[in-house]
Amino acid sequence: MIHEAILDHLRRSDAYLSGEDLSALLKISRQALWKHIQQLKEEGYEIEAVPHLGYRLVSSPDRLFPCEIATNLGTKFIGKKICYFDTLASTMDYAEELGLKNAPEGTVVVSEAQTKGRGRMNRQWASLKYKGIYLSLILRPKILPNATPVLTLLCAVAVCDAITEVCGLEPKIKWPNDILIHNKKAAGILTELNAEMDAVKFVVIGLGINVNNDAHQLVEGATSLKDQKKDVVSRVRLLQEILRCIEEKYLLCQKKGSAFILEQWRAYSLTLGKRVRIASHHTHKEGQAIDVDSDGALLVRTDSGLIERVTAGDVVHCR
Amino acid sequence: MIHEAILDHLRRSDAYLSGEDLSALLKISRQALWKHIQQLKEEGYEIEAVPHLGYRLVSSPDRLFPCEIATNLGTKFIGKKICYFDTLASTMDYAEELGLKNAPEGTVVVSEAQTKGRGRMNRQWASLKYKGIYLSLILRPKILPNATPVLTLLCAVAVCDAITEVCGLEPKIKWPNDILIHNKKAAGILTELNAEMDAVKFVVIGLGINVNNDAHQLVEGATSLKDQKKDVVSRVRLLQEILRCIEEKYLLCQKKGSAFILEQWRAYSLTLGKRVRIASHHTHKEGQAIDVDSDGALLVRTDSGLIERVTAGDVVHCR
Repeated sequence: MIHEAILDHLRRSDAYLSGEDLSALLKISRQALWKHIQQLKEEGYEIEAVPHLGYRLVSSPDRLFPCEIATNLGTKFIGKKICYFDTLASTMDYAEELGLKNAPEGTVVVSEAQTKGRGRMNRQWASLKYKGIYLSLILRPKILPNATPVLTLLCAVAVCDAITEVCGLEPKIKWPNDILIHNKKAAGILTELNAEMDAVKFVVIGLGINVNNDAHQLVEGATSLKDQKKDVVSRVRLLQEILRCIEEKYLLCQKKGSAFILEQWRAYSLTLGKRVRIASHHTHKEGQAIDVDSDGALLVRTDSGLIERVTAGDVVHCR
Repeated sequence: MIHEAILDHLRRSDAYLSGEDLSALLKISRQALWKHIQQLKEEGYEIEAVPHLGYRLVSSPDRLFPCEIATNLGTKFIGKKICYFDTLASTMDYAEELGLKNAPEGTVVVSEAQTKGRGRMNRQWASLKYKGIYLSLILRPKILPNATPVLTLLCAVAVCDAITEVCGLEPKIKWPNDILIHNKKAAGILTELNAEMDAVKFVVIGLGINVNNDAHQLVEGATSLKDQKKDVVSRVRLLQEILRCIEEKYLLCQKKGSAFILEQWRAYSLTLGKRVRIASHHTHKEGQAIDVDSDGALLVRTDSGLIERVTAGDVVHCR
């Protein structure tokens, strides 16, 4: 809290802020202030201290510190509570525990690295320290369990909006939850549900985004925003934009229903119109992906002309 | 473990078992044996000790101790691991935590009393100590999330089978999950789901059964098996039968699909054929309950002739 206040005052100051003024503002001794400044420096903040002039914030470290995310975030409830870790086994597991302990809607768990990060179907998710965004978000929508998949679509669209806005790239969505740029995977979304039969208790949305990974740090078929943009991306700015976009769409859904999400999803979709092969639970299906349903199911017209609803599985886009 | 072995030997013995033989069988000293016997007595086991003859088990306490449940249970996986508590906040919360920690399928959490027992929609569930069965069961079915409701139907049928078998009563099911005897509620079932969008991770089934509550210990509209049978019911025997019935149906479902569950459910149903009023999320519907769907939804023919699927809510049987 005191660190955030110090940074806040330094950011607002155009020039140097004297130690006397700063310690008075914070109601702490100058010696205590000096100690806090040292701690901030250790966290990577570059703070210049000039005798008789005072302190000046030169630069902030590339870290997803809650105080960085909270600055000018401008959301109503998403990100009001942020749990930050340097390393965590899995942000999903941690968020799930918080969910069971009644953490408020909008709680965000973010970690600079994960030792057991996971994607869909318990697959491993590589989390390169300080290079990506690995976060889990707790939502408590008042919906039936079978209406949950639309939240995955909502978040996919929100992430695409944010990448477009912050990076100027052209992201696309591969059903159900992969975000691709130039046909390479840049981000994945995982939705986990905790529900009674007739009411969702909470949903945890997991985002894993390759942001500043260098080309040699990516597996085949993967890319990063830096790799595509040929420039470093501010993880804080991107994360803020994502949280804002999710909240905006989520609130609009509550007011107007989720039809607009499907519209926006279709516009980003790389899958619709393509011939697809779907592998799920030891079965294979092939056909033309023609649309996405209000519950997130992919509608596929098979060669026999039947239209099948696909709710699970991995999609391969055929040539 | 040693207590279970002692009880096991005493049960198998027709007459007295000498301390010498018993301590030899268990490979412990006679002094250690004596201590364990004292502990068992404190737990409520009546064990007669006659000089020169030995020990004899006279009676077991009416407790749901794991060793009691495990004796002659005869299941393959349900109840192989039992977590027993004298008092617990909620068996559901505890089982959910176990589920997240990868507890094996079939794990049972049972408590003699709950301080925060809950039913559907976070409603309070009264748990009278030593009088009922309050348990949660972890299942890990390989199904899609939207196929989960049939597990509630399965368990309702299993509980009805067990009550019929053990008590000779005629239980009925009120959609979706109330078990009634002579129109009064004797048991409730709660199903909670932890899932990804395309795979169930685990399901926790909660059972709350009024077994030996006396008439004055029941709220209006509720009954107990003792109240109906006019005799005390063995909670251990009933619990064992329930676990066996659930396992049998669950395994059959995996082999043959869930159609037979719907058949059995219909036979126990008190709701089908009745005029019903359904309250859910601030809306009301009224009509004739005509059937239950493969996903557990109630099909209701409204006065306008439309057939509506009801997946959530509270049902009132009209006259």
